[in-house]
Amino acid sequence: MKDFFNVVTIEQALAFRSVFSELEMEIETVPLIDAFERVLAEPMSATENLPNFRRSTMDGYAVCASSTFGATESNPAFLTVKGTSLMGETPGFSIGSGEACRISTGGMLPVGADSVVMIEHTETIDSTTIEVLRSAAPGQHVIEPGEDFLKGEILLSAGRRLRAQEIGLLAAFGRDTLQVYRKPVVAVISTGDEVVPITETPTPGKILDINTYTLTSMIKACGAVPISYGIVRDNSESLNQTLALALKTSNMVLVSGGSSVGVRDVTIDALSALPKPRILFHGISISPGKPTILAMSQKKALWGLPGHVVSAMIVFLKVVKPFIEYISGIKGLMSQTIKVQALLSRNLSSAQGRVDYVRIKLKTVDGKLVADPILGKSGLISTMVKADGLIEIGLNVEGLDQGEPVEVELLY
Amino acid sequence: MKDFFNVVTIEQALAFRSVFSELEMEIETVPLIDAFERVLAEPMSATENLPNFRRSTMDGYAVCASSTFGATESNPAFLTVKGTSLMGETPGFSIGSGEACRISTGGMLPVGADSVVMIEHTETIDSTTIEVLRSAAPGQHVIEPGEDFLKGEILLSAGRRLRAQEIGLLAAFGRDTLQVYRKPVVAVISTGDEVVPITETPTPGKILDINTYTLTSMIKACGAVPISYGIVRDNSESLNQTLALALKTSNMVLVSGGSSVGVRDVTIDALSALPKPRILFHGISISPGKPTILAMSQKKALWGLPGHVVSAMIVFLKVVKPFIEYISGIKGLMSQTIKVQALLSRNLSSAQGRVDYVRIKLKTVDGKLVADPILGKSGLISTMVKADGLIEIGLNVEGLDQGEPVEVELLY
Repeated sequence: MKDFFNVVTIEQALAFRSVFSELEMEIETVPLIDAFERVLAEPMSATENLPNFRRSTMDGYAVCASSTFGATESNPAFLTVKGTSLMGETPGFSIGSGEACRISTGGMLPVGADSVVMIEHTETIDSTTIEVLRSAAPGQHVIEPGEDFLKGEILLSAGRRLRAQEIGLLAAFGRDTLQVYRKPVVAVISTGDEVVPITETPTPGKILDINTYTLTSMIKACGAVPISYGIVRDNSESLNQTLALALKTSNMVLVSGGSSVGVRDVTIDALSALPKPRILFHGISISPGKPTILAMSQKKALWGLPGHVVSAMIVFLKVVKPFIEYISGIKGLMSQTIKVQALLSRNLSSAQGRVDYVRIKLKTVDGKLVADPILGKSGLISTMVKADGLIEIGLNVEGLDQGEPVEVELLY
Repeated sequence: MKDFFNVVTIEQALAFRSVFSELEMEIETVPLIDAFERVLAEPMSATENLPNFRRSTMDGYAVCASSTFGATESNPAFLTVKGTSLMGETPGFSIGSGEACRISTGGMLPVGADSVVMIEHTETIDSTTIEVLRSAAPGQHVIEPGEDFLKGEILLSAGRRLRAQEIGLLAAFGRDTLQVYRKPVVAVISTGDEVVPITETPTPGKILDINTYTLTSMIKACGAVPISYGIVRDNSESLNQTLALALKTSNMVLVSGGSSVGVRDVTIDALSALPKPRILFHGISISPGKPTILAMSQKKALWGLPGHVVSAMIVFLKVVKPFIEYISGIKGLMSQTIKVQALLSRNLSSAQGRVDYVRIKLKTVDGKLVADPILGKSGLISTMVKADGLIEIGLNVEGLDQGEPVEVELLY
């Protein structure tokens, strides 16, 4: 098993998501007020017309449009005000030709009325008479029943991540509880005999455990729930024990560290000792992040991530995150990556046969957005703290030229 | 007070943020593991060099670079392997000319070594002798002490919103707890005699309370804590009572509804009855969203937002959110708005003297991103559900032409 080395492209790596399709998150019922950013697990249809009555969108008078045809300031239409549409109530009267009904924004039009004249386009003559100074078109300033959604129309499909407007939509149909997928639980294990908990003072040669903190933060940003197993010594027995426990309590396991040859073997050995293990790949042709391992056991993904903080973060963002979104049940738009266009501030060279991810500081120069590469070793977290985003240099691209437009994926 | 009508531009509206500078959020101490996306309330400096020892970034041999000068595959340098640098430990020996030390990624270089030769560029002759096949440069594959951060260097200023990498940075310096600003609490009150709770079945003329759900979701997205006061009847006495209670329990109050003349008066009356009220503006020259009110009482902002769901959402995103970020203590980058460039699919007209926000569906046509306007009344939530983003048509712009490049602010 130690000699196994199956390097894949990033596209091949991402294609392995489908292997985990049997792992579907369980469904839970949550109150609508807590459902923001959750993933809908049931399709939703309109149970009613929305709105279910003819509403005004303005303050003014509900009328029959035909009563106003040809009205101008010099030749107004005189209408008789028959009453008021009280907010939230059905008017107890109907409107005919030559008649009007006082109405507020959101009020229900009386039977017979097909449009609303804005109050600004009327003059009050006396308590029961108005002048209308402009011609109204039928349907003007009115929302028709079903204009927002028709009864039976599909509102949302399962797999939709709920934004504020989808939450509002479900409120509009009175869905005070709904079914969503449970959030995936993702276990984080740090390895490395040089790594100590951040509550300790590191003796010379030791470093504090950064990856537990960056990875758990990024897991939260994906809408998943991190569970930390702390630091495990570099031997396959203790790692295997922790892996077995993590597999039981989570839907996915991340092991960070182990980018050195010896430790990589420990990770591979520990993964191989799990029930029915399958090593899907061992190495991705990206930089940083090449020494990444994906294994499967009990239908769950187990990752061996590089130990260097920048490498681990980039592999998480470019590879692990799409797997988390996949098992979260999200359909359609898979990833929430946001890109901006900028001009590259200097030449960048890149080796062919791998995809390079370069950290970028964004600057505005002469009103133009400029992408300034942050060059530095992948062990330096300072390069990520300074970075606003990442650019990608493709597999078969030798480099990029100064002034070239690039797409910067924001790190937010 | 009913005649008060002070319409401001959006820039003037946003400038009122400074009025609330006296309201500084309290500070609380949180564990680092829970600090993701919080706002730092104290400046942070490097208490040590990071790293605080000379580390290898590769698996191989630590050497004096000068021992390898001129080495090639045909004329290798022979070095004596003096021992191994164990992970997390200080090597108990030093390295001189002609000597080497086995080392793994992250290992500490022994005294005397200034560079690392990758294992791929060596051949093992016997247990204590290697051939080095390439010349090493001093500092090669090494992170120097302080190369990430020097002791005393400023890491982060107060007011920084903590991303995953900033959390990792604080872990690297052993900050297991830190001071952050408390999250602002934002109260939400719905008004309107036509509005009923979503748990009720609306009788004709009534609608369900959407705004409580969209607004609380958007408040969460800002990193603040929503508190809902439900629906208040359209009379200034009950609204005033609820406002007084909301002011006591929150840092900001949003009243939605009341875009009709009568209700607007109720909101103004209720705001005017608060202790030491000050109406800062009443109307913003934007569409949708014009009938927005900002008031201040007890140093806190109280908003009267339009009742139409789309108007309320747009005013929240463009106006209220920057105020929430301001009182959250965020310095520097104020808003997390993300924009993409796209080409407009059709002509759009706009009235001068106001800023228009148009909902956009993004499409890819012939490999280009196209912004397709969603035209529809601001009472229709369907237009927001279909929308991927918003574009802005400026104050003095008559319209935009088909094919024109536009910046689309994403709704995510």
